[in-house]
Amino acid sequence: MEIIKKIKDMVSISELLRLKGEKIGFVPTMGYLHKGHISLIERARAECSKVLVSIFVNPIQFGPKEDFVRYPRNFKRDCNFCQKAGADYIFFPPTEEMYEKDFKTFIDVQNLGDEMCGRARPGHFRGVCTVVLKFFNIIKPDVAYFGQKDYQQLIIIKKMTKDLNVPVKIAECPTIREEDGLAISSRNKYLSSDERKNAVILIQSLKFAEELIINGQKDLEIVRKEALKKMGSNPFVSKIDYFDFRDKEMLCEITKIDQNTERILIASAIWIGKTRLIDNILLENNF
Amino acid sequence: MEIIKKIKDMVSISELLRLKGEKIGFVPTMGYLHKGHISLIERARAECSKVLVSIFVNPIQFGPKEDFVRYPRNFKRDCNFCQKAGADYIFFPPTEEMYEKDFKTFIDVQNLGDEMCGRARPGHFRGVCTVVLKFFNIIKPDVAYFGQKDYQQLIIIKKMTKDLNVPVKIAECPTIREEDGLAISSRNKYLSSDERKNAVILIQSLKFAEELIINGQKDLEIVRKEALKKMGSNPFVSKIDYFDFRDKEMLCEITKIDQNTERILIASAIWIGKTRLIDNILLENNF
Repeated sequence: MEIIKKIKDMVSISELLRLKGEKIGFVPTMGYLHKGHISLIERARAECSKVLVSIFVNPIQFGPKEDFVRYPRNFKRDCNFCQKAGADYIFFPPTEEMYEKDFKTFIDVQNLGDEMCGRARPGHFRGVCTVVLKFFNIIKPDVAYFGQKDYQQLIIIKKMTKDLNVPVKIAECPTIREEDGLAISSRNKYLSSDERKNAVILIQSLKFAEELIINGQKDLEIVRKEALKKMGSNPFVSKIDYFDFRDKEMLCEITKIDQNTERILIASAIWIGKTRLIDNILLENNF
Repeated sequence: MEIIKKIKDMVSISELLRLKGEKIGFVPTMGYLHKGHISLIERARAECSKVLVSIFVNPIQFGPKEDFVRYPRNFKRDCNFCQKAGADYIFFPPTEEMYEKDFKTFIDVQNLGDEMCGRARPGHFRGVCTVVLKFFNIIKPDVAYFGQKDYQQLIIIKKMTKDLNVPVKIAECPTIREEDGLAISSRNKYLSSDERKNAVILIQSLKFAEELIINGQKDLEIVRKEALKKMGSNPFVSKIDYFDFRDKEMLCEITKIDQNTERILIASAIWIGKTRLIDNILLENNF
């Protein structure tokens, strides 16, 4: 496994791989890898001839009051994980290599980034799109792997790629969960042991809403109220950013289920103490 | 010479060219070609093994009150010009091929696009950057050719390309002029014969400012006042959008010449009757 830090070197290496006819699978990460990332790397390993993981905590996707500085980092541990999962290359550029002093160019996917997580994190998806497009231009992968846990991000990246004719296939990968159902996330590390136990309320509430719908409730405002009540009754939930029913592709809100409703994304972001967690589930047909 | 209308076909053809090791030179245009465009195509012809010209009047770079609808178009004439100048391919996509109904993604180069032409044309450079990046992703040229007449556009495209690590070399080409000095532009067609004669006031005023500077005037506010006076005295000048002294790379304003001043861009946009014209000259060292 090779570690690459300079953009120039990354460009030459990926250029050479393409010339050799390799199929490049790319897994962009912010490091502090967990089973979710590993599953992306393994999928890339199964589908591509060369697997490249980027490790880069992207400053421009964090708000001024967010956790950029305290975001967990452990490069040595990440290297071991990558090697075990079968990565061929790690791209690990320093911040100043990715953003020179006078950096000015940003990608905006209108509307899709304004609601849900975008409401609490203005500019977040702009930062994500910008860094992802930079990586795509540097690495020129055949396929890039993204997890469904960050569902809004996945939809926005797919839209950007399509709108800008970026020649990269976006692969969607399922959310990986702990045994009790909590979606695996690098930010779970912030949770105290009590908080960790109670964080399961997020997936439980999503599943509770799903059940209400499957059992015939068509009015999603009622489902939302019930789900919020359930979450609100857990003393570890310090704030609820949103609990939304959305179209799977366009992310527009769904308020009522009718005969045309085919799929519903139920997505939520809550705070357990000082840690913000997100999760979602997708309902198909079953109502 | 081959004419390509579908993005899908363009992608396959340029993919094939790259596999064959061809060096692709790309000249993006809005059609209604003139000697300025021809000079770009000829330069591409001299430097590359395959030359591709795009002809696309890009709706998203026009403001709602601008001349998108009346912008001159003549595809047959353009084809003849391209053929004579040595183009191998014309990419001529319909609008709905480039922008599907639900198009949402835009590129912003901050600050650089706000002043000068950006002040009178908000969103213009965002539209330019977005379409250029789309073309770059579809065609993946080795070199793209831009004229210095649209100097602010050139600087913004260069900045976007650098910031986003786009693997395309941007070639700067000199402004082509009529015998009396008027910079050649598709919009010159809008001018009546009297307006056409008087449009030369633009380059004359730029040269007048240059002379004042060469003759020792260090205070650029004084130079500006004199130049504005000269332009204002021409009854065909219906409006002056700006007459600016700018840094050649960063486009920041220069107000005084001192020992550190190396190059000055003098740029202006004025209206002759109902037609907006831009031009610029670059002063190097000579002061």
